[in-house]
Amino acid sequence: MLSPELEARLGELTDLGAAGALLGWDQQTMMPPGGAEARGNVMATLTTIAHERQSAPELGALLDAAQPDGDVEAAIVRVVRRDHDKARRVPAELAAEMELASSRAQEPWAHARATDDFAHFKPFLEQNLELRRRYVDCFEGAEHPYDTLLDNFEPGLTTARVREVFEQLREGLVPLVAAIAAAKPAPVLRGPFPIAAQQELALEMARAFGFGDGSWRMDLAVHPFAQSLSPQDIRVTARYKDEDLQGLFAVMHEVGHGLYEHQVDPALGRTTLGTGVSLGIHESQSRLWENLVGRSEPFWRHWGPRLRAAFGEAVGDVTDRDLLRAINAVEPGLIRVDADEVTYSLHVILRFELEVSMIEGALAVDDLPAAWNAGMKELLGVDVPDDARGCLQDIHWAFGELGYFPTYAIGNIAAAQMWTALQRDVGTLDEQIAAGEYGAIRDWLREHVHRHGRTVEPAQLLERATGGGLDPAPLLAQLNAKYRALYGI
Amino acid sequence: MLSPELEARLGELTDLGAAGALLGWDQQTMMPPGGAEARGNVMATLTTIAHERQSAPELGALLDAAQPDGDVEAAIVRVVRRDHDKARRVPAELAAEMELASSRAQEPWAHARATDDFAHFKPFLEQNLELRRRYVDCFEGAEHPYDTLLDNFEPGLTTARVREVFEQLREGLVPLVAAIAAAKPAPVLRGPFPIAAQQELALEMARAFGFGDGSWRMDLAVHPFAQSLSPQDIRVTARYKDEDLQGLFAVMHEVGHGLYEHQVDPALGRTTLGTGVSLGIHESQSRLWENLVGRSEPFWRHWGPRLRAAFGEAVGDVTDRDLLRAINAVEPGLIRVDADEVTYSLHVILRFELEVSMIEGALAVDDLPAAWNAGMKELLGVDVPDDARGCLQDIHWAFGELGYFPTYAIGNIAAAQMWTALQRDVGTLDEQIAAGEYGAIRDWLREHVHRHGRTVEPAQLLERATGGGLDPAPLLAQLNAKYRALYGI
Repeated sequence: MLSPELEARLGELTDLGAAGALLGWDQQTMMPPGGAEARGNVMATLTTIAHERQSAPELGALLDAAQPDGDVEAAIVRVVRRDHDKARRVPAELAAEMELASSRAQEPWAHARATDDFAHFKPFLEQNLELRRRYVDCFEGAEHPYDTLLDNFEPGLTTARVREVFEQLREGLVPLVAAIAAAKPAPVLRGPFPIAAQQELALEMARAFGFGDGSWRMDLAVHPFAQSLSPQDIRVTARYKDEDLQGLFAVMHEVGHGLYEHQVDPALGRTTLGTGVSLGIHESQSRLWENLVGRSEPFWRHWGPRLRAAFGEAVGDVTDRDLLRAINAVEPGLIRVDADEVTYSLHVILRFELEVSMIEGALAVDDLPAAWNAGMKELLGVDVPDDARGCLQDIHWAFGELGYFPTYAIGNIAAAQMWTALQRDVGTLDEQIAAGEYGAIRDWLREHVHRHGRTVEPAQLLERATGGGLDPAPLLAQLNAKYRALYGI
Repeated sequence: MLSPELEARLGELTDLGAAGALLGWDQQTMMPPGGAEARGNVMATLTTIAHERQSAPELGALLDAAQPDGDVEAAIVRVVRRDHDKARRVPAELAAEMELASSRAQEPWAHARATDDFAHFKPFLEQNLELRRRYVDCFEGAEHPYDTLLDNFEPGLTTARVREVFEQLREGLVPLVAAIAAAKPAPVLRGPFPIAAQQELALEMARAFGFGDGSWRMDLAVHPFAQSLSPQDIRVTARYKDEDLQGLFAVMHEVGHGLYEHQVDPALGRTTLGTGVSLGIHESQSRLWENLVGRSEPFWRHWGPRLRAAFGEAVGDVTDRDLLRAINAVEPGLIRVDADEVTYSLHVILRFELEVSMIEGALAVDDLPAAWNAGMKELLGVDVPDDARGCLQDIHWAFGELGYFPTYAIGNIAAAQMWTALQRDVGTLDEQIAAGEYGAIRDWLREHVHRHGRTVEPAQLLERATGGGLDPAPLLAQLNAKYRALYGI
């Protein structure tokens, strides 16, 4: 049994995390703009207190003395010990410097992107890189300096393994994208799609996917996200434009993230392990609902009539097949967040390669724009007209979040692996989706993924759920089957 | 100059307070019901951390070493020292026990009120009283045990002084209420008043009273309140019923609270002194806007046409004079929160007297219902049919908040004193209100009340603003003049 003192400390860390989560959610959904300055202070203070408690020697001593019973308690001690060791290795001054540099880079990044002025952002990116190198130096024994960064988002995964997996993914995707580009383009839904009707439809879908009443809410945010304050208090956010239906898919995506947090075993609630195990596994949940459920033929067999009722003539003379093709249109483009299911991972692979080169020192920040543009041409066949739509498009590097990007593609890969397992374990998957029934999917995900929280390491979780390690083959097979049929290639 | 170390600690305490404020606001406006259990934990953890930091010996040492320059810095050291000393005197175990007992009494209180079963609530009230007596014992030198409780809400005020003031107030109010009760009743506005139109009107009024754009928001809550996350992030809440206009006045009330926090000197922002100085002074601000501005004849000269436009025939054949009489209807009733401007303070006086008797031990909890009912008969001439509408009606005693109630009447008294001073200092007050102009009122309040935050003690603030100490004479004079005219007595 874990001691009450240890449990109290884990409860406190959980509570500090939840308070921080609420501050973040409110900032992006409710806060009047005048509150921004004070909010920055409040969030920094809570982060500092949490870091202080996370790295407290008293916590270390309680972990040393712990006598865990069974697998779950053993996992708690193991994971909390790792969090504690990580927090202790990074001097408070460096942690504060990293936080300050992140916060200071936001405005220059936004300005640089708005004015297409990479030089303006350059010194901030250089400082973030320098701080990440110092961060990496706090740890020993990593095979590659990037491993240390990656481990913060995808525990246990190595740069070498990502390289292999991404190489295989790239080799499969590039020819598929080229073949689609040469085929007859998919039709485009012209809209308009009134936002109120989208909102209503999105709520229906979110409810159907399976949040319990009184345990979630949905609000608007400029950049949609999902946030868990507790498994019974999930905040999903959405954004709609009346010219397309992307907002609906963004809701399915965020509901996927939210359901993961909603279905964690309540017994893990105040242990700091009652949350998603890694960003890649988290992303697998959002992509599974968005792409494998939400962009599938049986899904639209069920929701198509509802869509036609909601938007009338905007989809009036579109056939079911053209609707499905439009929803699954593939087109190599400049912007990652607008990318379709097929090209998305290529955007991610480019960022991974550039990050690794920058951390290794092989790529100077000065040379980043040229490397970016060359990579886009090679991977997606597109010409980048300016840095605003090139290497300045994402906020991650302004935050100094190196090691984050790969998890987006890992999510796509893992989702496809889980889908294959789901198809194996649930015989009538398509029929259920066509009937608007998601209970079997939800239950499978709860059992194999969600309920474990952080108690099972990502690689082990994937192995147990799907019978194999991270493997891009199912994703490539699914994409080839689906898109070769849709595009007649 | 204050040391950076001291400033950092005050900033941290401010931030913890703001995080707690957001958790409270969200709980009452946004949180799905499923979030309640986790929210209780998060709030308790932040309270514990704040108490720990507030009572930290390091803070005491920094205060000892402080060499304040000027009045404001001296006030900071004085007030923070007082907060620190109070926090240190109360053992952490007692503070935790008080918090736990408060939280545990909520549900039984709600159940007792719903089922009119005082016996069900009794043991919880007894425990709260016992804990308050132990709390009082942590402090020395108070003339009366209730002084210690009162001081948490109204620093510097004594039980003896409240007794004198309330005696004078009671002697003035009881005959006025009796005279009104004997007069021809005021007309009643029958409604309905559609809630959407009320909401729109309330927003217009709130904007006219003077929040800066982007520095506040208004949401719905079951029990309206105002919360400041920072002077530039004020959260006002409202509740409307379509059968009456009370929701509009509740908004004016909460906007009054909000404007106080909005107009505190920004330089006090992260000192823990950048907030209202006492509950009585806070309530004076809400009551001033609700009653002295919002229920005045010139106010409705301006807003009457807008009201008629909004609600059409519900106020169509009501004369301006009858509208004003209806808005100012006086009727002795059972429920404090529904009470009018004249009878309200009598409800408060009763609670004060009962609290003092219970703390003294003169009144046993067993005898509370009978004492309540006798007091209501004596003060307001009403018969209390059950405890649900009697001594169980307010949540304060379930929270163990003894010493809080008197501040409601002190607010009424102070508001009247400030109004007299405002009339003296701003020659054309009525004309400005009739023109829908509130700038002069806002500026006067900023200068004399708001900007000082907690740097000037309540008694001194009132003295400087109005030229006198707490004095019920202006309130009695104003109420007599207004209501004798309205009721023709």
